[in-house]
Amino acid sequence: MKTPSLKKIDPSSSGKFKDRELAELETKKLLKKMYDRLYLMFAHNKFSLLIILQGIDTSGKDGTVRNIFSGSNPQGVRVHSFKNPSEEELRHDFLWRCHEKMPESGFTVIFNRSYYEEVTTVKIHPEYLDDQRIPDELLKDKKFFEKRMERINEFEKMLSQRGTVILKFLLHISKDEQKQRIEERLKDPSKNWKFSPKDIEERKHWNHYMTAFDEMIEATHTKHAPWHVIPSDKKWYRDYLTAKVIEEALKGLEMEFPKVKNRKIKVD
Amino acid sequence: MKTPSLKKIDPSSSGKFKDRELAELETKKLLKKMYDRLYLMFAHNKFSLLIILQGIDTSGKDGTVRNIFSGSNPQGVRVHSFKNPSEEELRHDFLWRCHEKMPESGFTVIFNRSYYEEVTTVKIHPEYLDDQRIPDELLKDKKFFEKRMERINEFEKMLSQRGTVILKFLLHISKDEQKQRIEERLKDPSKNWKFSPKDIEERKHWNHYMTAFDEMIEATHTKHAPWHVIPSDKKWYRDYLTAKVIEEALKGLEMEFPKVKNRKIKVD
Repeated sequence: MKTPSLKKIDPSSSGKFKDRELAELETKKLLKKMYDRLYLMFAHNKFSLLIILQGIDTSGKDGTVRNIFSGSNPQGVRVHSFKNPSEEELRHDFLWRCHEKMPESGFTVIFNRSYYEEVTTVKIHPEYLDDQRIPDELLKDKKFFEKRMERINEFEKMLSQRGTVILKFLLHISKDEQKQRIEERLKDPSKNWKFSPKDIEERKHWNHYMTAFDEMIEATHTKHAPWHVIPSDKKWYRDYLTAKVIEEALKGLEMEFPKVKNRKIKVD
Repeated sequence: MKTPSLKKIDPSSSGKFKDRELAELETKKLLKKMYDRLYLMFAHNKFSLLIILQGIDTSGKDGTVRNIFSGSNPQGVRVHSFKNPSEEELRHDFLWRCHEKMPESGFTVIFNRSYYEEVTTVKIHPEYLDDQRIPDELLKDKKFFEKRMERINEFEKMLSQRGTVILKFLLHISKDEQKQRIEERLKDPSKNWKFSPKDIEERKHWNHYMTAFDEMIEATHTKHAPWHVIPSDKKWYRDYLTAKVIEEALKGLEMEFPKVKNRKIKVD
């Protein structure tokens, strides 16, 4: 199983597609099949699906949720956007708040950011660390984050053995594309609400983030919970590829509608 | 404000529509507007929306969730289906487990069943009562449930004053329509999984349920949290009317996209 790497993937790629029309058509078809399979998964009530979306600010996590999952039956789908942890959350281990939100049998859960922040963002911003009692020296040691990532692998293996299909997406954009997207948020009054001055601050750490992402993928790309690096400068290609990965993973599951044994019951 | 009553509303009504085509077209238009307003509500981040769906088995609660909310951005929408309470839930007051699931600012939450079970189903099945220490004599006293409904009104007033728009729907079907739907679930292999032998048992209490629903509506139809009795034999009319009620409630809210004050920020 080849480990993907940001360095080797062009964020502006559109794969086999020359333009968006054909890609959008194929995406639509994939999504239709995907919604049917998610419904079947809900009825079958054995497997569950966990989608993890990671990526730098403006990489398109919100848009991916909207474009891929609007259309699915909301009864079986939940989205969790993880913000700065609360005081209570900080008093627990770094997997705690995410564990509670995992999908029960039949359900699909999308994590918009996740515990992977604790091995990427926290590398760059130790002040966000969940446990402030940990001394700075320890944080500077590579092993600290390597250990955390081993714990993540074990955690995901446990979920996977319970029937959770785990698909992890790193939305990969170029630094230029991010500039355009931030400027667009400033320009378009209906997008102003998505602008945060923090996004501009964070741009300064661009290279650190890319390195942290690659280290994360290197350490946590497993058979039971693979990473997919999605070229995301072109939103329509990002959507196509994401839909394709999910649809193909679901296609591989043996699922059926549960049957009633005695169908001759009389209704008075 | 007129209190609706099941007795006076024909479950097979289709209002101004002679057939489904026109209704479906209007529903589609209403939903498009509704999704835009829900997105604006999410961005505006002040109001929230609570939709409560009640109705007898097979009345179409799941279908309403699917038909009305597939298409909305799942990032701002959550559905909670309340099943039999857990042991922990039973050790708390009857509003506790629902309170936790309420929508935060900007969000839409749909309750598929709710605390209204505790003043309807529990009237018919005292064995499901959340607090088994309550003596049977007390349960037989009308006042027990009247008091609970007063507590509900006060609870909903508190939520409403915090910015939660509350819309309550009673999906109203005829006893004949229910028979057909149960038979359909037995006949159609892809619907078998929705069949429960309990549905046939519960049919025996049909009249008790209708009375309990009317008593519930009578006591808890308020300005800040009104009930809408939806004729639901025709699914396409049910969807139209539900969409219309929600869209009109949202139209009445003053909302706008938050603006950035200084839009001249330079992105390096």
